Amino acid sequence: MSDAREKALQYARQNGERFLTELKEVLSIPSVSTDDANKADVQRTAEWVAEQMRGMGINNVQVMPTDRHPVVYGEYLEAKDAPTVLIYGHYDVQPVDPLDLWETPPFEPTQRGENLYARGASDMKGQVVATLKAIESIMQNGGLPVNVKFIIEGEEEIGSPSLVSFMESHKDMLAADFCLNPDAGMLGADKPSIAYALRGLAYFELRVFGPDHDLHSGQYGGAVRNPANTLAALIAGMKDENGRVTLPGFYDKVRPLDEEERAELARLPMDEAFYLEQTGAPALWGETGYSSVERVGARPSLDVNGLLSGFTGKGAKTVLPAWAMAKISMRLVPDQDPDEVRQQLLRYLEENAPEGVRWELETMHGGHPSISKRDTAGVQALSRAMETVWGTRPLFKREGGSIPVVADMQQILGIESVLTGFALPDDHIHAPNEKQHLPTWYRGIEALIHFFYNLA
Amino acid sequence: MSDAREKALQYARQNGERFLTELKEVLSIPSVSTDDANKADVQRTAEWVAEQMRGMGINNVQVMPTDRHPVVYGEYLEAKDAPTVLIYGHYDVQPVDPLDLWETPPFEPTQRGENLYARGASDMKGQVVATLKAIESIMQNGGLPVNVKFIIEGEEEIGSPSLVSFMESHKDMLAADFCLNPDAGMLGADKPSIAYALRGLAYFELRVFGPDHDLHSGQYGGAVRNPANTLAALIAGMKDENGRVTLPGFYDKVRPLDEEERAELARLPMDEAFYLEQTGAPALWGETGYSSVERVGARPSLDVNGLLSGFTGKGAKTVLPAWAMAKISMRLVPDQDPDEVRQQLLRYLEENAPEGVRWELETMHGGHPSISKRDTAGVQALSRAMETVWGTRPLFKREGGSIPVVADMQQILGIESVLTGFALPDDHIHAPNEKQHLPTWYRGIEALIHFFYNLA
Repeated sequence: MSDAREKALQYARQNGERFLTELKEVLSIPSVSTDDANKADVQRTAEWVAEQMRGMGINNVQVMPTDRHPVVYGEYLEAKDAPTVLIYGHYDVQPVDPLDLWETPPFEPTQRGENLYARGASDMKGQVVATLKAIESIMQNGGLPVNVKFIIEGEEEIGSPSLVSFMESHKDMLAADFCLNPDAGMLGADKPSIAYALRGLAYFELRVFGPDHDLHSGQYGGAVRNPANTLAALIAGMKDENGRVTLPGFYDKVRPLDEEERAELARLPMDEAFYLEQTGAPALWGETGYSSVERVGARPSLDVNGLLSGFTGKGAKTVLPAWAMAKISMRLVPDQDPDEVRQQLLRYLEENAPEGVRWELETMHGGHPSISKRDTAGVQALSRAMETVWGTRPLFKREGGSIPVVADMQQILGIESVLTGFALPDDHIHAPNEKQHLPTWYRGIEALIHFFYNLA
Repeated sequence: MSDAREKALQYARQNGERFLTELKEVLSIPSVSTDDANKADVQRTAEWVAEQMRGMGINNVQVMPTDRHPVVYGEYLEAKDAPTVLIYGHYDVQPVDPLDLWETPPFEPTQRGENLYARGASDMKGQVVATLKAIESIMQNGGLPVNVKFIIEGEEEIGSPSLVSFMESHKDMLAADFCLNPDAGMLGADKPSIAYALRGLAYFELRVFGPDHDLHSGQYGGAVRNPANTLAALIAGMKDENGRVTLPGFYDKVRPLDEEERAELARLPMDEAFYLEQTGAPALWGETGYSSVERVGARPSLDVNGLLSGFTGKGAKTVLPAWAMAKISMRLVPDQDPDEVRQQLLRYLEENAPEGVRWELETMHGGHPSISKRDTAGVQALSRAMETVWGTRPLFKREGGSIPVVADMQQILGIESVLTGFALPDDHIHAPNEKQHLPTWYRGIEALIHFFYNLA
């Protein structure tokens, strides 16, 4: 092992406590991007990230405004003839409700056992800070052997509405050989993994309107379409008994799994018992003919994310509600397109919404699915780094979640992404009691140190 | 017209302003019976009603505790050989949410035009005060020509859980020739009406549980039953495309409408245009083969009263929710039974809820439907009173709402009810901006004065 690499690793170990303190610092800022009430917090988080970069010696650090939340840019381009890595991350977080289910407040990072609990601990301030700290460790011990550029955005949790135009207008600034994106996770604390495919997303809010005011369900029940019953029927019709989505044309562009990849996916340590344990569901269920790992990684899905109508308080209120609302989203796989899925949903609604109600469909956000090559220099460097730290070769997997920026970078910047990250399946991301497993976080920092040296 | 009757009417006219002031006073107390936070307000409202009775000269006035909210009792039994009328009412009100849709605060009674806006103005503090003021007017001008007993409860809006046992243990105290129940409404300000049938109610909260915590819809979407999608499918299956409820055996005990009654109902001024205007719905819809007035009065219905699951705030949260909830209620017609309907719903759920979810059904409250005779002395006295005041004979109608106490009184006390009241169809009862039409309220007081004299 080179002297510089060894020193960087030692530096990381010696400064581990401080790294954690700084992670807690940024986790204390409630950078919820969806809520305008948190706009100043989101800005403050961007400034915190920029300050970290400046402190490490990154050049040309800028907090660059967009229509909503800023992008933090920075670069270090001193390694002649070495590749340039574009490092993607996001510093915004999901909303925290239902707040009453958090054991400790979401923005008061709290250690319990080997875990650190806070909104964003895993998704993905933890991963952003791990990456910054790996680079700091290298820069403090002989300098970076590769070139890096940072693009750390604040709108990922609301669908990155500004990112495409940002990338389109800064193509030269962002030019790189590939992207390192640590927004994916591992399969377990002892199961390092590299994701090579991501699902896309099409997210909608469907509102159904009936009577022009809430009615007494006795005086009028039976004479009008109830928008809540109607919404339920529309949702029910979106899936058949085989767990297949019924929107017209939904599967037309779904790339079938070949037998080789099915065999590979079957070797992943993600069997039915794994999914039962991770979800705590009474039983698993999904599209007939596919395993859970296939259903989540390689097949599209449709889920209701929220429902609201009428009286939802304690007790009974005999109201026939004037409207009902559902948040509905589809996870997409290559080569589905979120805009086409929107058209399919509109067609379904036009064909199935009955007389007696009005409806509105709002498109919340969408992102393309993606699938990447597995034999690039970046993937190989990461694979070796993980093997060094964990003593086992990483598993290659498809990710059920969505990182639309991967497809956008393929299209706009012409680069592939290396997907990694040190989140675990039980981190409760997007849910109460989100956490980061700290031993995995520290190993992640070391793996990233190896990764950058492996690239040189 | 007798001298006493004329004096009582004059008294009511001269004291009309004060009557209204007193109505506003009781409307200012938030006696929401479903919410424990309002328990003291409910008690205070009972005391207010008792104080009114005492002030009028009613004897033996008592605020009688029950397991939850008290019953106000009072009596005046000085009319030898005259009939005894049991006067039923309730002083509790519905919850007020959605609060932001109220144009003026629900417990700050506000006059706009000919209407008084407040929660309970129409349902039914307005009707209780109208009855009290009619009796006060008579007692101040020669005394009551009949005997009266009052039973004014505080739990009607939560299904009167204490009333059955209260009546069972006070049968002698409550003995009467018939009941006057002014909790029904009129068809229009110039259309006095008397209800002769009421629908019953079976109200439930259905909760569906899937994963044991909220999941990320990307990481797990497609692999588990989504409780919100599942709840939607269960609701959708409860009605067929002909608007008929599919619960097994639901229609077995429904008494068919005979051709004579259908012809009578068709003569009511409640055509399709009336229901379109009252509901503001884009179109009417209901059970195939029946008119709207039949669907609402003589046929059972099933409505979702509330829906809640997952993320319902602004924006998008990609959560696969751990649970989903619906409040679902059925309006019943003779001879359906709420307990039997509960069994039918349970059977439907047992047969249709899929593996992969758990479910719970909570029975919120229920009440029997009822149908009354139309040729009793009480009904005749009311009919003549209304004709005197409005100059037109009242219409006889079936009420879509539920007043379970009517069936309970038939069963426990062996008495029929005379159903009336001065609420109008557009009073927005159980909804924001509930109101009472004041000219109708004043006419109602006069009609009740005539009613009591007509009985003598």
